[in-house]
Order: sequence, then C-alpha cells, then structure tokens
Amino acid sequence: MKNTTLLLSLLLQITIFSHVFAQNGRILNIEEAVMGQVGTFAPATLTALQWRPQTAFYTYASGDSLIQTDARSGKTSLLLTLKQVNDALAKEKLSKIPSIAYVAWKSTDHLTIYAREGKVFFDVIHKKIDRIHRNIEGAAHVEESSVEELLAYTVENNLYIRKPDGETIQLTHDAPMSGIVNGQVVHRNEFGITKGIFWSPQADFLAFYRMDESMVTDYPLVDITARTAELNSTKYPMAGMASHEVTLGIYNMNTGKTVFMKTGEPTDQYLTGIAWAPDAKSVYIALLNRDQNHLRLNEYDATSGELLKTLFEEKNNRYVEPAEPMLFMKTRPDEFIWQSQRDGHNHLYLYNRSGKLITQLTKGEWDVTEIAGFDSKENTVYYVSTQESPLQRHLYTIDMKSVKTILLTAEHGTHHPVMNINEGYFIDRITSTDVPLKIDLCRITGKIVRNLLTAENPYKDIAMPEMEMITLIANDGVTPLYGRLIKPLKSTGDTKHPVIVYVYGGPHAQLVTDTWLGGARLWEYYMAQKGYAMFTLDNRGSSGRGFNFESVIHRRLGELELHDQLTGVNYLKKLPYIDTTRIGVHGWSFGGFMTTNMMLNVAETFKVGVAGGPVMDWSLYEVMYGERYMDMPALNPEGYARANMISKASQLKGKLLLIHGDIDNVVVMQHSLQFIRECVSNNIPIDFFVYPQHKHNVVGKDRIHLMQKITDYFDSNL
Amino acid sequence: MKNTTLLLSLLLQITIFSHVFAQNGRILNIEEAVMGQVGTFAPATLTALQWRPQTAFYTYASGDSLIQTDARSGKTSLLLTLKQVNDALAKEKLSKIPSIAYVAWKSTDHLTIYAREGKVFFDVIHKKIDRIHRNIEGAAHVEESSVEELLAYTVENNLYIRKPDGETIQLTHDAPMSGIVNGQVVHRNEFGITKGIFWSPQADFLAFYRMDESMVTDYPLVDITARTAELNSTKYPMAGMASHEVTLGIYNMNTGKTVFMKTGEPTDQYLTGIAWAPDAKSVYIALLNRDQNHLRLNEYDATSGELLKTLFEEKNNRYVEPAEPMLFMKTRPDEFIWQSQRDGHNHLYLYNRSGKLITQLTKGEWDVTEIAGFDSKENTVYYVSTQESPLQRHLYTIDMKSVKTILLTAEHGTHHPVMNINEGYFIDRITSTDVPLKIDLCRITGKIVRNLLTAENPYKDIAMPEMEMITLIANDGVTPLYGRLIKPLKSTGDTKHPVIVYVYGGPHAQLVTDTWLGGARLWEYYMAQKGYAMFTLDNRGSSGRGFNFESVIHRRLGELELHDQLTGVNYLKKLPYIDTTRIGVHGWSFGGFMTTNMMLNVAETFKVGVAGGPVMDWSLYEVMYGERYMDMPALNPEGYARANMISKASQLKGKLLLIHGDIDNVVVMQHSLQFIRECVSNNIPIDFFVYPQHKHNVVGKDRIHLMQKITDYFDSNL
Repeated sequence: MKNTTLLLSLLLQITIFSHVFAQNGRILNIEEAVMGQVGTFAPATLTALQWRPQTAFYTYASGDSLIQTDARSGKTSLLLTLKQVNDALAKEKLSKIPSIAYVAWKSTDHLTIYAREGKVFFDVIHKKIDRIHRNIEGAAHVEESSVEELLAYTVENNLYIRKPDGETIQLTHDAPMSGIVNGQVVHRNEFGITKGIFWSPQADFLAFYRMDESMVTDYPLVDITARTAELNSTKYPMAGMASHEVTLGIYNMNTGKTVFMKTGEPTDQYLTGIAWAPDAKSVYIALLNRDQNHLRLNEYDATSGELLKTLFEEKNNRYVEPAEPMLFMKTRPDEFIWQSQRDGHNHLYLYNRSGKLITQLTKGEWDVTEIAGFDSKENTVYYVSTQESPLQRHLYTIDMKSVKTILLTAEHGTHHPVMNINEGYFIDRITSTDVPLKIDLCRITGKIVRNLLTAENPYKDIAMPEMEMITLIANDGVTPLYGRLIKPLKSTGDTKHPVIVYVYGGPHAQLVTDTWLGGARLWEYYMAQKGYAMFTLDNRGSSGRGFNFESVIHRRLGELELHDQLTGVNYLKKLPYIDTTRIGVHGWSFGGFMTTNMMLNVAETFKVGVAGGPVMDWSLYEVMYGERYMDMPALNPEGYARANMISKASQLKGKLLLIHGDIDNVVVMQHSLQFIRECVSNNIPIDFFVYPQHKHNVVGKDRIHLMQKITDYFDSNL
Repeated sequence: MKNTTLLLSLLLQITIFSHVFAQNGRILNIEEAVMGQVGTFAPATLTALQWRPQTAFYTYASGDSLIQTDARSGKTSLLLTLKQVNDALAKEKLSKIPSIAYVAWKSTDHLTIYAREGKVFFDVIHKKIDRIHRNIEGAAHVEESSVEELLAYTVENNLYIRKPDGETIQLTHDAPMSGIVNGQVVHRNEFGITKGIFWSPQADFLAFYRMDESMVTDYPLVDITARTAELNSTKYPMAGMASHEVTLGIYNMNTGKTVFMKTGEPTDQYLTGIAWAPDAKSVYIALLNRDQNHLRLNEYDATSGELLKTLFEEKNNRYVEPAEPMLFMKTRPDEFIWQSQRDGHNHLYLYNRSGKLITQLTKGEWDVTEIAGFDSKENTVYYVSTQESPLQRHLYTIDMKSVKTILLTAEHGTHHPVMNINEGYFIDRITSTDVPLKIDLCRITGKIVRNLLTAENPYKDIAMPEMEMITLIANDGVTPLYGRLIKPLKSTGDTKHPVIVYVYGGPHAQLVTDTWLGGARLWEYYMAQKGYAMFTLDNRGSSGRGFNFESVIHRRLGELELHDQLTGVNYLKKLPYIDTTRIGVHGWSFGGFMTTNMMLNVAETFKVGVAGGPVMDWSLYEVMYGERYMDMPALNPEGYARANMISKASQLKGKLLLIHGDIDNVVVMQHSLQFIRECVSNNIPIDFFVYPQHKHNVVGKDRIHLMQKITDYFDSNL
C-alpha cells in the first residue's frame, strides 16, 4: 500500500476491507462458538503437506495414503499406505499409528514416525524400519544431534546423554530440591528461548543452560484435588526481586568434562541467542543486562569458557529485546545474519564474525517477521514481512549485494510460504478475510503454478454477522490504529445494540489481521448473532507495527493503550446502531489488566467488564516481562502506582467479573484476590469466578463453561 | 407446656406466638440490616451489671460512674467514677481506660481493671491500685491460680509459669516447628474444651494439655497480602486420617518435675473433662475413644500419673459427647455432679468418687442447659432447662434429696439468671419475642422484687415485618419442628411473594428461639421489607431438643435434615401469598451443606441458593466433628457417598452461589473448589465469590459487603 493511499484511507476513516457473509442460515451454539473454529468449522486443508527433502516432490496425507506429487509435472502417485507403515511397526512389535499424518520427512528417503514407543525412522524405498529411538523413561526435552545420533535429554532437573549403543552419561548431579535446573528453558521462555540443550554441529560438544533458582521466592500454588490439598509451589521472581542466575555449560564429548562460559557479574543477567560457531570452537551468547537496555553479542571459547570478544553492543533507552540467535551463512561461515529492532523496526543485518556490519539488508517502516530461506549460493534471502500492510504477511526476496527487494506474493492476506528454493518452488498457504485457506504451488519467482486447494467457506450454512476492518487515527494525530467490528446480525437501523470491546492490548500480540474471520474468535461472531456489536482494536504497544509503536508504552503500561481504546470507543459511539449506555469490555491477561484499567479510569463509559487472569499490580508480575516494560518498581514508582489497579479499586462503578485459574503460574491469582480484597474493604460490588486447577488459560472442554459464564455475565448485566 | 396442649397446637399447626411490629415507619438500609442489631438497634441495657461478691449489692455502669444498689433496700449510690480509676492508673503510669465498664469484681472490695498494660487490681475502699499483672510479652492463654497469684501462660508452643516475685519457670522446651503444642486448647475446641492450663485448687500442681500434631497433614493456606503470597499452613486432620495425640502433663510446683498421666493406647483418643480432685491428689479425665462411642471417667494419680480407677463408663451406639467436667460439691468433696445425655436428654447425675451413682437429679423429655449454682449447704441445685419449651429457657431449682423441682421464672421467653444465692437473690435477664430486654431483680424464690430495666422497642421507627413462630410435624408423624416465618412487609392478599429458606440444620445450633426477633438476624427482616418471605426451621439434628432428636442424623448427615426442611417448604407452599416458583435457600457452613443438599436433591423446588463456607464432602472435614456424626469414611462409605455433594454436582438445576473465605480453616476452601471443578467438568453453571483473607465467617465491616452480595444474588435471580 502506497503512502498516499494509506493516508487517504486514514483521514477518511474508511473501511479497508470487510467481509459480508451470508446472513441467512442457522445460529451457532456455545459449543460451536468455542470449539468449532478448530473443529467443525476448520477450513479444509492438505494434511501433513511437506516437501520431500532434496526433491521437487511434495507429499500429503489423503485418507490412509501418503500421496506424492511432482511439482514439475503435477504427476501424482501413491507413495505409502498406513497399512504399510503399521505392518512395519508390527514387525518390530510397536503400536500402530492411527493416521498416516503422524509422519514427517527426515531425509530424502526416510520418514520419522511418531509412534507411542518412540521415534521410528522408516525407509520409504524399502518400506522398512531402519532405526528406533525408544522413549527413555522419565526423559523430557529430548534433543537429537544432527550427526552421530546422540540423544541429550533431561530427567527431572538433571541432564543426560544416550549414545546409539545405549551407553548413558549423566552430565549433572544436582539434588532434586536444590533449585538447580539443567538443560531446560530459562528466563520463562522470554527472548525466544524455546530449549535448553544445544548440540554443536558435529556433536562434539553439548551446550546447556544451568539455572539456579534457589534464591527465588516460592509462590504457593495449591493442588485441591488431593484428599488434603497439597502445596505445589513454583519459583516466581517478581519485578525487582531476586531473580534466578543462569549460566551456560559446555560438555566436551571427548574429554567428558564440562566448562561454564565466563559470563561474569551481575549474575542475574539474561543469556539469550545461544549459537554455535560453525567450527564449534566457540559459542555465542547475546548477553543482556537485567535492566534489558544493553546487549553484548559475546563470543566464548567452547573449551576454556573464556570471553574471546564482544562482536557488538546494542543499547536502547527503552529496552533491547533479542529474539533470534545469529544465523550463520553455510557458504561463508564468517558471515551471519542478525535480527535487530535497533532502527525502530525488526530488520536483517549482515555481519562478519569480527563484529563488523557488512550491510543492513532490509530497511523501512515495517518488520521482517520470518527468514524463510536462502538460495544455494546464499546471495538471496527469502523473508516474510509486513511491508504491504501490518495486517498482512507477504513473501519477499532480497539480493544481499544490491539490497534489491522483490515481492513474491500478490493476493491480500496472510501468506505462510513453505520453501523449496533449491528446486525453485514454494508452497503458499494463504488465508485472508476472504479466504478460509488456499494452497498454491508457486515458482520461486512468485508465479502460481497451480492451486492445490481452495477451502470452501465452512460457515456457508451459518448466519454469520458482517465483519468490517476499521482504521482510526490515534490521539497523536498520526498513528493509524487497526480495528475490527463485527456487526450485530440482522441489525436494522431502528434498533440500538450493546457493544463489547474485546481487548488484549499488550506487547507480542496482534488481534486484528487480514486472516479468515479477521483474526477474531468464532465466539465473537456468536455474540454478534445474539445482538452484540463486537469490537477489537490493536492499540499502541501491540505487535506487527514495529519497535517504536510497541515501546512507547515503556514505564507507563496502560496509559497510551487506554487512549487508543477510547479512540475506538469514540468511533463506536458515533455509529447509529450502537447503544452508548451499554458498552462492555472483556479481555484476558494483559487484556484483563486493560479491562480493569478501562472500567476504573473511564468508569462512566463502561457498564460491564469481564477481566480474566488480570494483572492488577505490575509489582506482582514476574521480572523478565515486568521489568522490560516497567523497569524495577524502585526505579519507576510513579509508573507502577499509575498502573496499579488495586489501589484504584474504589473507582469501580460498573459491574466487573474477575476470572482466575487457581493455579495460574503466569499471572498469579494473588492479583485478583488483592483486588477483590480492596473492593470488599471499600464495600464496592465485584464479582469473581475461579477455575480450579486451571492455569493462566482455561483450556480443553472447560473452555465452553468459561465462555458461557462470560456470555451469561454480559447477557445478564449489559 | 402440658403435653395435651402441645399435641393440640401441633396437630392444628397453629401459631404458638408471633410478633406484629408497627408496620409503618422507615425501611432499613443494608448497613443497619447487618451491623444494626448489635449497634444502633441493640436494646438498652445495664452495662457491666454484676453482683459485688459476698454482698447483696449489685453494680453497673452509668455514664462514667459505677453505681451500686442494695438489693434489699433498693438504695442506690455512686461507688466509683472513671476519673478515680484513671487517676489511680496515672499514678502508676498506666494508660487510661476509656470506660468504667472495663472493670469486673474480683472480691468484695477489689475490682479487676482491664488496662492496656495488663490486669490491674483496684481497691474500691481506698481507691488505689493494689497489684498489677503486667502483660508478658508474647504470652497468651494466661491462667491465674486462685491462690498464690501464680500466672501460667504460653509463649508460642511452650508453657511457662511466672511467680509474684517475677521468677519465670519454663515448663516445656519443644522446638517451634516440632508440631508439639503445650498448654493450649486441643481437639479443635470440641467437647467443651476451652483451655489447656488447669491449676490445682491450691496451686501446688499445674495440669496442662500437650498435643503432638507432628503426624497430622498440613493444609496449605495462603496469605495473599504478602508481596509474594506466603504459605501459612494449618494442621488439619481430616475424617479417617492420622489425628493428633494428646496427653495431660502435671507439673509439680514443689519438685519442679512434670509427669504425664498414663492414658495409654490408642493415642488418638480424646482427653475431655479435665478436673482436679478437691484434694489435688488426683486428676480426672473423661477419656473418649476415637470412635466417640465409649467414654471412661478415669482418675489418675497426680504424682505418679498412674490410673487409679475408672469411675464409670458410658457407651452409645451413636456417640457419647462429654461437654462438661465433673463438678465437685464443696461441702461434700466426695460427691460430684456429672452431666450426661445417656437417657436421651442432658441431665444431672449425682455421683460419689467411688463412681457410685447416688441419684439422677433431673429427668424428663428436656435438657438441662446450665448449672446456675447451689445453696450454701449444697442441698439445692439451681439450673436452667428447656422444660417449659425447647424455645425457652427458664430457671429451676431441685432439691437433691427429694428431687423435687420448682420453676422460678414465669414469663415466656429466654431467661439468663445471674445468681446471688447466698444473699437470696438473682438478677433475671429476660428476652422473648415480645421483649427486647428486661432485667428484673428477683428473690431466690422467683418473686420479682423490682424491675431494673425494660428496654423499649428499638425498632419503633422502623416498618418491621410481622414474625410468626410455627410448629410443624416431621414426616415421622410425631416429632414437632419449630419454624419462624417473617412475612413480606405490607403483603396484600393479591401479591405472590418469593420466599427464602434460611437454614443451618446442624448440631449445636438452634435458630428459632423465644428471644427478641425470634432468634433471627435483622437482615431477614430487611429482606422481608424488600418483599421476601423469610423462613427458618430447626430440623432434626439441631440443638435444644435433646440427644435423641440430635443424634438420629448419625451416619447419614443431610438425610432427615432434608426431609424436615421439605416439611417446612410444603407448609410454605400452602400459604396463599407465596410464589411457589420462587423459592430460595441460603445457609452457611452446615447450612451451606444443607443449601447445596436442597438445591441438588430437590432441584425442581429451589430456584436460587447461596451456600457460604459449605461442607461439600464430609471426608474433607476434620476428624472430631466429622467422625462423631459420620464415623470414619472407611466404616461408613455409603453414608459419606450419600452426603457427598461433589459427586452429585451435575444434579444442579437452579442458580447457586458459593461463597468461601480463602483462609477458612474450619471448612477449608477445597470443598467449594472441588464442587466448582465438578460443575465445570460437567458444564453446569455455578457462581462463586471469595472473601480474601477471611476465615470461616466473614466478620467485621466486610460483612456488609457479604450480605449485600447475598441480597443482590437473590434480587437478580429469584
């Protein structure tokens, strides 16, 4: 979208796009509204669609068959049947798999089969099992080396390696209640950390996180299912309090010795972006200070643990948030790509191992959201970005020398490309406000070879309310804000309708997207069927808009977010069919914080609120996330005070229902309980419901009960 | 009440008595409804009314004066002023007391003053302070010997003695977290146990309870007021589980040695009714087995701890529940009075110390509720009983030889006599459905000398709904059940009104009494002002009706209680002004159990329920009370299953609000949470509210919030 067009659309506050479903048909029930979106109403797809490695074939499951198609000719054949796989499994006395979709390509001729007893490696040429990695009792976080077939894994808090001959090595020997955890995720999954075990490329070293939580306060969670309720505490460091200490150990397969990288003081820093040098002589750590405003990309000697060099540093007055490790070029192992938000958006930077910036590859008022791959010479990067629109995701290519960008996908919406660059193809999975799911086979140039699937509208028999995508301007006069309005079903001009604002509003989430249903949950359409207008707006602080848009909330959570939500509410108030005396608000987690924030600070506007798992006081939230956005309580007392809902509880005027899982270990139930206590002390009416033995989200079929409870609350009170 | 009259009234189900208040006047507000009964609307009284020991004078506070009246002549004089007391306190550099009501007679010429710094002994003749028992830091459960001025007390879990010269002796040395508690109440206050320190008459010995709780399961209670919520566990033995072990130690002041009474095995028995022999050579323990169906009244040698003799045993197929220790005759120290329910009612038995029954003093289909005193020769016992009516309490006297009974109080209602037998008087405090409070001075013969106070109706400006006392017959065809109906204010024959059954229904409570407001809470009148009929019935199992009436519920809690409550509901359904489609039910604790029981088992009858602190599964309740009424779970699986509300949660049809204090250590919140979890699993709508940091009852001003919540729930849903 060109800038002039964008500006025009913004100034006029016109609809960018909307979707009008068939207005005739039947009404959803609550079970469908909650479970149907990924069940009954999930768009048709090609199951287990994958490229066969190093070939131009793609495969997918069809019934009990694994079908193979040649991308070049379109010729399709039966590759494998479920029976063939299960016969092979039976020979090894292994359990049958229930579906051919339980397979994934491991190499050109080998599939990995996820059987009950473990991972099985299946030779598709000879239709036989080559190798079995049986489940190891008590093992978790299993990580296989890319060579040598070594398995690293944890049992409770210790780390082990199993060799192909069955030999087992125990790497760490920490007592169960010591507070030391080895080989697992650290820093509560922040900074893109998804694992704690890192094999070196040739499997001669194993790097692993060691986390000492012994100094961290226990938060008492209670298991009420035991005959006498039992304590089941979790280590929960709250903002400003003693945090855990993480180190990186490296086990040497040849010497059998472990050294720890000398990451130094202060020990409550963050060890992010763990990456092996291609030669495995050194390991890289993106070391972030506890204040999260100063990152050093450090190289350590894998054998001695000594700091070899700091490649570069990144500082920011707000925060630095590394989310991806270095990505080394295979053909030029001295070069790597680094992702950084340093210029206000997430972009790709080509560096060499001396720490010298070769070039900033991508640049502009948009974010790279994914590196999709490289050509074989690594001259071209394929990546996904928000360049077309923050609501959309498209595939681009950039020449690393000329820095010339080419857009490869055309149709509006959200593209999920599955690359096969060597053979010159990608499979494009597309969803948009108009498209439930479409799968195209494309040439690497972007040219569509053929359509593999176009899912029909799964709601063709349902009376689906109209959905509209809205663009508004924030109160700074320039920042566009995207919203989604689902209109009451069969609204006539005469009737006034209540409206519910569904809000999240926190970092790392984008609710309004150019995807099927506009990113909404089906429940919102269900509510619109019942006569509610349902509105959602992604305020400043939310994702998809870059670092600047997100980080303006720093040290003042809830403030600009509230302004932006009110921009949305003011828009709603001007709609002729909205009953401005019946405005509700609902959200979960950060959205529960926002719901309460809106109920308390604009008490006259909102009649009813439902806040699930709400943060009520950021000083009761955990260090990593809490301090990134709010700094430590001692360093930002005014900010914490302004964002403290508990101390403002007496401002509540409307009906507010709080909902919490009693073993929520993300936003602990203390938030809701302290807020309720303050309400009780001030004789303020407040409602509450607890989901016993649920954590931060109510999942599974109990979610029907949850959404019915929320629905009933609005039905009764709004 | 004669039997024929009773029968007649029962058969006709006529009103025994009722109270019609002025129907004009203003309406109560919720604060008044909750706090006013013991506040604004508390009947006028004579504050600190007491007999001056060994005299015929009684004293009371009037403004800042302590007034003394001669019962014989009626001559009244000023005895003491607040200023005199505070001047004396100031001389000793003690804080002032805010009211002259902070005094109590200790002897003929000495008052005990409850000052901030401790207990002060004040000589009323010389207007000076004789002695000060300063508070001991950290001390609790202070017990003064009747001679020698010795103070025994606990600090944390250990026991100490302080002598008048300041010398302190530490009697026990158990580590703080050892699970051993000395000198405190044991067995969760069951069996009338109110203290854990027992001085011998001459203070040469100190008997004390030692409780070992180390084998008892911890129940995790959480303090959410700490920055990071903290664990604050309590020892909570559930029915059938390992219970604490109690022993009785005796410290010898002369030898400085402690011996433990050899109470033997099994160690989880109950040590009740601790009593010193008048000569202090032995101590008596009413030893009850864990099954609570076999009591032995044992005598132990205070010096050696040896069992000297078992005076007698009591067995019962249901349970034996000792509640009072032996009461020795002063003039005939070989004789004592024992209270027992062995013949189906609580009566007085005269025994000698060999264990021989001399005579059963009282007998009949009624209960002795209190021994009020003896004449100086101890030939006559004064006692209070339910002989006139289970709803009333009257004073009687019985000659211990002839066993001839005389009724000393006439007016219907509840009499609380304050005896002065030696001087030939008692002060009679009377309350009834007609009388807020009346205080009469009476001769010991019952003749009223003069009225000291007749409180006016505190509700004269309030439009108070009419209250009616009802008698119904249980479904056994013979048992009368007493109920109380508060009628909707200004009900006309034309309007149908919703009705709320307020229920407790468990042992040890009687809600319907011939007292002011009929035993109801003012909130019930408030609800009747709003248009509800408010009904309460004391079902089988409740108190005031004797052991047989109570104990029929044994092993089947909730069963007969439910039948009886339905007898009440059937009565309500026949009233012309009741809307039979709008019946609600509300209760707390056992009443919460009953509320749920009624909602689940007669689901079509009850539209709305509010259950506070409800027992949902008796196997989650504590051993003492739980096993008395239900036996151990392993010995009564069918009984526990039938009374288990959790497993029946899916039978719920009406709207049910559960309310729980999150640190309830009587009925732990696990009851509500497990019930809710079952509702969620079965997708049954259920409501819940929590009172953070409240225990089994919501007390203090937060109670206004609670009652508003309950009111709102009925207003919105019934």
